[in-house]
Amino acid sequence: MDQFLPPVKDMIFALEEIVGKGNLKSNPHFEEFDSDFLETIYESASEIASEIIAPTNKNGDEQGVSLSGNKVTVPDGYAEAYNAYVEGGWPTLSCNPNYGGQGMPTTISMPINEMVMGANFSWAHLVLLTNSAIRAIDAHANKELKDLYLEKLVTGHYSGTMNLTEPQAGSDLSVLNTVAEPNGDSFKISGQKIFITWGEHELSENIIHLVLARLPDAPEGVKGISLFLVPKFHVNKDGTLGERNDVKAISLEHKLGIHGCATCVMSFEDATGYLVGNPNEGLACMFTMMNDARIGVACESVAIAERAYQQALSYAKERVQGTVHSESKRVTIIHHPDVRRMLLTMRSQIEVMRALVYVATAEMDLSDLSETDKKLSHKIKADLLTPITKGWCSEICQEITSLGIQIHGGMGYVEETGAAQHYRDSRITTIYEGTTAIQANDLIGRKFIKDKGQGLLALISEMKNSVDDFDLIDDDLETASQELHNQIERTENIITFILSEEKHREYLSGAVSFYFLMMLGTLIGGWLAVRSIEISLKALQSDSIDSDFYEAKLISSKFFVLSILPKVNFYADSIEKGADLVMEMKEELF
Amino acid sequence: MDQFLPPVKDMIFALEEIVGKGNLKSNPHFEEFDSDFLETIYESASEIASEIIAPTNKNGDEQGVSLSGNKVTVPDGYAEAYNAYVEGGWPTLSCNPNYGGQGMPTTISMPINEMVMGANFSWAHLVLLTNSAIRAIDAHANKELKDLYLEKLVTGHYSGTMNLTEPQAGSDLSVLNTVAEPNGDSFKISGQKIFITWGEHELSENIIHLVLARLPDAPEGVKGISLFLVPKFHVNKDGTLGERNDVKAISLEHKLGIHGCATCVMSFEDATGYLVGNPNEGLACMFTMMNDARIGVACESVAIAERAYQQALSYAKERVQGTVHSESKRVTIIHHPDVRRMLLTMRSQIEVMRALVYVATAEMDLSDLSETDKKLSHKIKADLLTPITKGWCSEICQEITSLGIQIHGGMGYVEETGAAQHYRDSRITTIYEGTTAIQANDLIGRKFIKDKGQGLLALISEMKNSVDDFDLIDDDLETASQELHNQIERTENIITFILSEEKHREYLSGAVSFYFLMMLGTLIGGWLAVRSIEISLKALQSDSIDSDFYEAKLISSKFFVLSILPKVNFYADSIEKGADLVMEMKEELF
Repeated sequence: MDQFLPPVKDMIFALEEIVGKGNLKSNPHFEEFDSDFLETIYESASEIASEIIAPTNKNGDEQGVSLSGNKVTVPDGYAEAYNAYVEGGWPTLSCNPNYGGQGMPTTISMPINEMVMGANFSWAHLVLLTNSAIRAIDAHANKELKDLYLEKLVTGHYSGTMNLTEPQAGSDLSVLNTVAEPNGDSFKISGQKIFITWGEHELSENIIHLVLARLPDAPEGVKGISLFLVPKFHVNKDGTLGERNDVKAISLEHKLGIHGCATCVMSFEDATGYLVGNPNEGLACMFTMMNDARIGVACESVAIAERAYQQALSYAKERVQGTVHSESKRVTIIHHPDVRRMLLTMRSQIEVMRALVYVATAEMDLSDLSETDKKLSHKIKADLLTPITKGWCSEICQEITSLGIQIHGGMGYVEETGAAQHYRDSRITTIYEGTTAIQANDLIGRKFIKDKGQGLLALISEMKNSVDDFDLIDDDLETASQELHNQIERTENIITFILSEEKHREYLSGAVSFYFLMMLGTLIGGWLAVRSIEISLKALQSDSIDSDFYEAKLISSKFFVLSILPKVNFYADSIEKGADLVMEMKEELF
Repeated sequence: MDQFLPPVKDMIFALEEIVGKGNLKSNPHFEEFDSDFLETIYESASEIASEIIAPTNKNGDEQGVSLSGNKVTVPDGYAEAYNAYVEGGWPTLSCNPNYGGQGMPTTISMPINEMVMGANFSWAHLVLLTNSAIRAIDAHANKELKDLYLEKLVTGHYSGTMNLTEPQAGSDLSVLNTVAEPNGDSFKISGQKIFITWGEHELSENIIHLVLARLPDAPEGVKGISLFLVPKFHVNKDGTLGERNDVKAISLEHKLGIHGCATCVMSFEDATGYLVGNPNEGLACMFTMMNDARIGVACESVAIAERAYQQALSYAKERVQGTVHSESKRVTIIHHPDVRRMLLTMRSQIEVMRALVYVATAEMDLSDLSETDKKLSHKIKADLLTPITKGWCSEICQEITSLGIQIHGGMGYVEETGAAQHYRDSRITTIYEGTTAIQANDLIGRKFIKDKGQGLLALISEMKNSVDDFDLIDDDLETASQELHNQIERTENIITFILSEEKHREYLSGAVSFYFLMMLGTLIGGWLAVRSIEISLKALQSDSIDSDFYEAKLISSKFFVLSILPKVNFYADSIEKGADLVMEMKEELF
């Protein structure tokens, strides 16, 4: 029951058919990544994910991590999995070729991130956080720091961390108070950071901490934050390791989930650090990779939802319970309609979420890799899609992992079954890298009201045009297109409502932001599902050799459009009718 | 942050204003329970819940239970809490006066169940399961058994368990294979039972197991199941305890939540048992208290949601983070609109759920306690409301405890905060005493299609009449009534749709049953909320001394009607549009 097999076929479908259609196929940076290439590389990654990493997942949850003195003990198999992953060159795929990377677009490596996250969510945080650190250093550090640290990070000899949060400074970093005192070429960093993922361990030779701190003369608030590189071990000019720096993990968090991941409280006491980027521009440096990290969490949400689905499906096909209708024979529970409903609710949303994550990732890539005149429109779209993708996928992931338990019945509540682990693990995704409220606020403020809805209206035009372009070859497609059309219109009403009302209703945007995000996630999901229906129908009509795949895709996409997309209407109702009530109750009445 | 104070005022509101209005006030069995009485008894119960039981909750989760040999070790404070509860006479409230009970209607004691469940969910299972055993014995056992066991159970000297599930027989009890061999006046019971709540412990002097088993010549399936009473210690005719019986806990489940509750695998090896009720009628005996137990789980869902709400509210009022609008002053997070939305989403649903639980409980009481000609209509309504109340409240409880974590941000994911415990604990409520699928199936099959919708249509008439009877004294009430009216109409469409289609669409009822249940829960919740609006407006107009209470009630009820009730429309859409797709995908395509 604890098997996991990355859905390579669906990944390639989402990349080639959904993302690729309008976007990648015309871009020279993507030319070399044809179907054969993708199949080869993904099958190979799938093997390490399913055979080497995935078997460490359940055991990792049970054993957990522990801290004794300075040493973090990790679950059995973690070191072997890390070494295999690094030796296979997997961390290098999308990194800078000047520092040992292979320079592939992130769009191409994203499915592999999804595979390792699905294989062992706790473990995978190590390699993915390292990737974030690599991006920050590559984008902002000076040549000296890059030459000394980057290749070691890219090749996995070193790992990396992101040190943002302090007890009083969570979502609001303006009040952080870790300090950096100048000390010749370097700085002395002092302060305490919490929620530092893989802040201490011995899986890699060295750990490179990226730390937000304040210089002595820094302005207050977010404009006085700088970024520093603080190595666990000092690195000599020749690249050899020196003594230990004055940074250490002083405790591990006891968390609801990701028990196999060391979430550390880090203490810096005059630790030597090096400035990355300009003074007081630390937050901007962090933000250049914030979009990446947020799409990364969306991708995690798909990954863990997929794993929960595979486990529930396997149980539903094995567990015998009850009978159906007139027959007296006992059946496996997949024969019960409500179990089917749950499985389809999981599957149809996972497939749409996956497509959305890849679409958003491609827009980010294309904002870098397109011709100059096209960069901006891709950037606007990437910026718009980022909070929607992160917020919506992580919220839906909660529903999916909960259904994973529900399908198991009483056994789902027993830890040994494994379904509960996915439920516990996934609960972090709506919280870190910005809670859903932060995403919703970013969406409605910076990505919508600020440009008077232009970016969103452009996306909606694109949706409408693509629906108009369909050959309505089939009743299914016509029905689905009509449903999408209706929900697009409802969304347009809400766009007009918010834009016209927010000026004179101070709290409106904050009050409706969550439902606005969920509405757009569902709507865009519906659009991707309708496109999947068209593609599947065409493939089936042309006698594709993958007819089973396309038949399943057709049904799950129809299910999304007819059974889940109508939720847009509910979100819209709540926005119109409920917004004024949100702030009506005085604090003391609560 | 880990304080808990039962919401006595809201409990009395729900009982007196929502339940009482049309029902209890005219029934002589409820005459003596006036406001003063209720306030006195609930304040007194609230004290023991908040001061003695609640402080054992977090520690109970952390320490957990363990089994060593035959002995289950329980968390610190459990024994003191049990003794205080028993010595206060609290378990006896709704029990048979002939055996030490106080004979109050369950409606009156239900708020006290809610208090103890909120105080310590794990611990409370002990006293509530005992209550179920008492009801089964009182209703079905012969006088000899009653005389020997009942008073000791009622007074808490003994506790009770329900032994139904076996590994191969979960939701489907027809295949259970524990056996009972006749042995003179008694029987020898052999088999293994799983998920037995508080199957072993030393908090009470003796444990009385009620066990489903098969007699040697029993027919196959559910018609061959009998009910037996199996004491942990034999009881001599004079009431003294004899030797230990051959029943023992052989392991404890390692569960997602309720860590402070011993969930046992029980082994019976020729254990002496006594037949309760007639041979082969065990399931019917169990079913007489199934409705009670299901409403009990709905009540638990309210309780744990309330506790999660109180904790999140307290955090929201303390945690300083960010600013609002033009002001530069940092604020507590309750000032952020999305935090308000989450708090109101929790609160408004909790209040409605509480009212619904009490309404359903009162209908059960009234089906016993009314004059003969009125019993039947109350019974039909109680039967109809039971699966809706259990299914809907437990599902919404998941959303509420998840919001409880979300409001805490990163701290919510850390176990020491306590928010995560409620999330883990509550996850069992949609599973035990019949999963939501079982409730939905019971609702759409036995409680709806079987009587051609007559019971439900009568309830809908009642809703419509009560809306028509309103003095539309206020715009708020008019708006809310209109919203309710619209959603009632939408529900009527769906009733017609299902009744006309189910005959020739074999899987329809199974495929839509979940959404049908959720739709009705939401609709009835909306009705109770609209009634709360009317009551609150009247109280405010008459300058009630509780104006703060009624103002808060007015806002939270409006929030339910305008922001949550519209979900009815979504459920209806999914039913109409999605039903046929549920069974369309062949098993092998999953």
